[in-house]
Amino acid sequence: MSNPVRVTIWNEARHEKSNPTVQKIYPHGIHHTISEALTQLGHVHIRTATLDEENHGLSEDILTNTDVLFWWGHCAHGEVNDDTVDMVQRHVLEGMGLVVLHSGHFSKIFRRLLGTNCSLKWREAAEKERLWVIEPSHPICAGLGEYIELPHTEMYGERFDIPTPDELLFISWFAGGEVFRSGCTWRRGHGKIFYFRPGHETYPIYHNPEIQKVLHNAALWAAPSMRKRDSCPNTQPFEALPPPPADIVSAGIQQDASQL
Amino acid sequence: MSNPVRVTIWNEARHEKSNPTVQKIYPHGIHHTISEALTQLGHVHIRTATLDEENHGLSEDILTNTDVLFWWGHCAHGEVNDDTVDMVQRHVLEGMGLVVLHSGHFSKIFRRLLGTNCSLKWREAAEKERLWVIEPSHPICAGLGEYIELPHTEMYGERFDIPTPDELLFISWFAGGEVFRSGCTWRRGHGKIFYFRPGHETYPIYHNPEIQKVLHNAALWAAPSMRKRDSCPNTQPFEALPPPPADIVSAGIQQDASQL
Amino acid sequence: MSNPVRVTIWNEARHEKSNPTVQKIYPHGIHHTISEALTQLGHVHIRTATLDEENHGLSEDILTNTDVLFWWGHCAHGEVNDDTVDMVQRHVLEGMGLVVLHSGHFSKIFRRLLGTNCSLKWREAAEKERLWVIEPSHPICAGLGEYIELPHTEMYGERFDIPTPDELLFISWFAGGEVFRSGCTWRRGHGKIFYFRPGHETYPIYHNPEIQKVLHNAALWAAPSMRKRDSCPNTQPFEALPPPPADIVSAGIQQDASQL
Amino acid sequence: MSNPVRVTIWNEARHEKSNPTVQKIYPHGIHHTISEALTQLGHVHIRTATLDEENHGLSEDILTNTDVLFWWGHCAHGEVNDDTVDMVQRHVLEGMGLVVLHSGHFSKIFRRLLGTNCSLKWREAAEKERLWVIEPSHPICAGLGEYIELPHTEMYGERFDIPTPDELLFISWFAGGEVFRSGCTWRRGHGKIFYFRPGHETYPIYHNPEIQKVLHNAALWAAPSMRKRDSCPNTQPFEALPPPPADIVSAGIQQDASQL
Repeated sequence: MSNPVRVTIWNEARHEKSNPTVQKIYPHGIHHTISEALTQLGHVHIRTATLDEENHGLSEDILTNTDVLFWWGHCAHGEVNDDTVDMVQRHVLEGMGLVVLHSGHFSKIFRRLLGTNCSLKWREAAEKERLWVIEPSHPICAGLGEYIELPHTEMYGERFDIPTPDELLFISWFAGGEVFRSGCTWRRGHGKIFYFRPGHETYPIYHNPEIQKVLHNAALWAAPSMRKRDSCPNTQPFEALPPPPADIVSAGIQQDASQL
Repeated sequence: MSNPVRVTIWNEARHEKSNPTVQKIYPHGIHHTISEALTQLGHVHIRTATLDEENHGLSEDILTNTDVLFWWGHCAHGEVNDDTVDMVQRHVLEGMGLVVLHSGHFSKIFRRLLGTNCSLKWREAAEKERLWVIEPSHPICAGLGEYIELPHTEMYGERFDIPTPDELLFISWFAGGEVFRSGCTWRRGHGKIFYFRPGHETYPIYHNPEIQKVLHNAALWAAPSMRKRDSCPNTQPFEALPPPPADIVSAGIQQDASQL
Repeated sequence: MSNPVRVTIWNEARHEKSNPTVQKIYPHGIHHTISEALTQLGHVHIRTATLDEENHGLSEDILTNTDVLFWWGHCAHGEVNDDTVDMVQRHVLEGMGLVVLHSGHFSKIFRRLLGTNCSLKWREAAEKERLWVIEPSHPICAGLGEYIELPHTEMYGERFDIPTPDELLFISWFAGGEVFRSGCTWRRGHGKIFYFRPGHETYPIYHNPEIQKVLHNAALWAAPSMRKRDSCPNTQPFEALPPPPADIVSAGIQQDASQL
Repeated sequence: MSNPVRVTIWNEARHEKSNPTVQKIYPHGIHHTISEALTQLGHVHIRTATLDEENHGLSEDILTNTDVLFWWGHCAHGEVNDDTVDMVQRHVLEGMGLVVLHSGHFSKIFRRLLGTNCSLKWREAAEKERLWVIEPSHPICAGLGEYIELPHTEMYGERFDIPTPDELLFISWFAGGEVFRSGCTWRRGHGKIFYFRPGHETYPIYHNPEIQKVLHNAALWAAPSMRKRDSCPNTQPFEALPPPPADIVSAGIQQDASQL
């Protein structure tokens, strides 16, 4: 891997404007804190984008030049344009990596790609979380010990309504008594998706070096080796075919592919 | 399983109105032929619905009383209302089974639930297809031999852009030189999904007793044992939690769940 | 499903002979307690077998007439004959269901079928366990609530060295701080396998009605619809093949299939 | 990836001693041809080992210093020592990659790691095979087109008795009418496994540049980032536990882990 991974960190960035607690923890926004952490860990080239920028800070050109898109959203999922969701989905299917963070489980783009509700249980009680590493030899878990401990987090509990992950990397234990599949991967089209649970806006989760390590690992892991747009071509046979019997006709009716 | 499985067969039913070849093979519509076949195989209660009926022949009440929905569409996918797609998706996530047939691979509902393009290669040359049974002990394959042979079919070829199936039940061989994952299952939410490739409108595929057997098996397999609507509840701890430190605050910010 | 499921419950049955605590909880053996529970829940026909019986109480005839085999072992895995392990494996691959209980994670048969170490972390501190139901609509979870709570159990913790389960049905929370994938399914050959964690011999786990419910559900789920022995046949082509060029020869060398 | 991948190519190497056709195609053995091809493609350091060497040419030291082991066997699977199989299995579970070739589907080590029969159908008729690339964006498929065509091969047909692959990369079409899952990956323990079907000894398959490309890709893909031996430790709680009630005792009975 010779070139740096081109990462775009997308952040809703609303709490940072209005909530003093969030402002104190993330004075320049969650995207800024993640950007600094990934940059320091190296081999990435970062840009950021936020909801209130024009076109949410995204465009065809930006996504074409993005290897991995990070996504953090919480209180304004519904304000993301459907056209933007369509565009991001298309780029993921063509190979762009996607890392969905914390409350991004309810974002339009995550639900679009997974097809499920992505619902879960939650509680904001600043309780202890221990993320157990299930697959220590997976690249996303590189450099971690047996677990990551967070002294104060929001709780997310099962049942998490997701398709069975291709790989289950982290399971969380919460002091209040719940468990959660906190690190999951899926492939959709040619793109790799990683969901990572930690990241509540009122706790300094993204300042934690182990969390930063996971995000950096995820950026390297999700970067595509190629981009490819699938189509639905009519195609000629490889082998000689006998002529069909006289009573078998081809109707020449066209499929409606208008949704592509 | 004491009660019959309540099956609703949805058909676009447009080719049957305009194309003489299709009319000859399916004079009362594809839905009618499938309905008769399943009824004869027993233990089902069938109703049908078509695109041009009011609300496409579907409603909350009908889907609530449908165990398994069959879906055939081809030339008019774009005419299906998005509200109907939302409604069908919700019922699948709550447990309703879904059997998607042939060119339904490009239907809005299939792509909504899988999150991918669902694109493939195709050719209409009336060639031979042999569907190899990969999992003979799966309920959907009950009563079949090693393969099903269709003398004249439309060809669908890989790469089929789908998420890795939970179960791969059939792989097709085509005389022209292609292969295809022709029978695939997925779980989404509490619902079971089966995609089955054969079924082109200008060949008498749905008159084939082995194809009918698979559809009947699929209806029995996809029927839910329960219906359940997931939500995203705030929840109390099971274990006593220590009070958080003074500098840790809970912001009480609400998640945007407007998309649910 | 008209005929009762024929279940054979295999138990190491050593602790029950020597340990007063175990004797008190399971005076007639763990197998006896499970047998009574399943019988009461109905639609099963039970027999039992134990390590110290001749041939461990198993035979070709018994396994041929067993739909689902339960397996509990702990301190004497190494005493199970390899021939018995071969025989059980063959029957599972031919369709017999297998339910592996608790410390059976280290049994020869479980490791044979999964191919991994099946190692884990453990602690015997009579702590609380809460088994969260991850897939409430799976037949094995029928009739359960959101979780099962056990007041005093042995702890098993991740990393559990298993192949990614086909289905993950339960994740356990332990008071001491660990998590565990406590209910997992796999298909191997034509057989269904379910691993279920609870069941330590010094706590009355198998007297718990919810645990009994899971075991009963598992028996019904794992029962095969057919038995089938795979072979490796030389086979004739379906399509006419051109004669190979003169310089291409077939060597007629035989594969070594002696291990089958 | 700075260091070359250390590959050991293991070959049964019996046909090359006795069969003139095989000798002509692989005068120095199949292992030699693969070794030369991988070396030329770069970034690997190769050693070879064969059945008739002392200890089959393998040792603890060699495997410890092997990142990826290739395995080709056919007529003498039963002659591989079980101790060697144990040793190889342990190294795979600790992270060593394994690439199993063609008739190695019936090798002891492949069946040990998968737990199934690995049976299939076969025919030696020098027929045409077309391997369709199912996941073009997977590293093992890098640099390939839509398919690989082999003019003359042995046929392998479904049903292939394997656990559902984690990833299905190639499906073969055969002129005689069969299909086959020709490229499959699994994770077992910390090791990655790739099975690749082509490679019959009487056809010059391993001289084909596209086949060589796949083998080289597989070597790079299967190389581990770490080695790790799992154990089964007794462990202390992270959280304070209440003392168990007086009637709950810990028996202190030891698990039999003699099989590890």
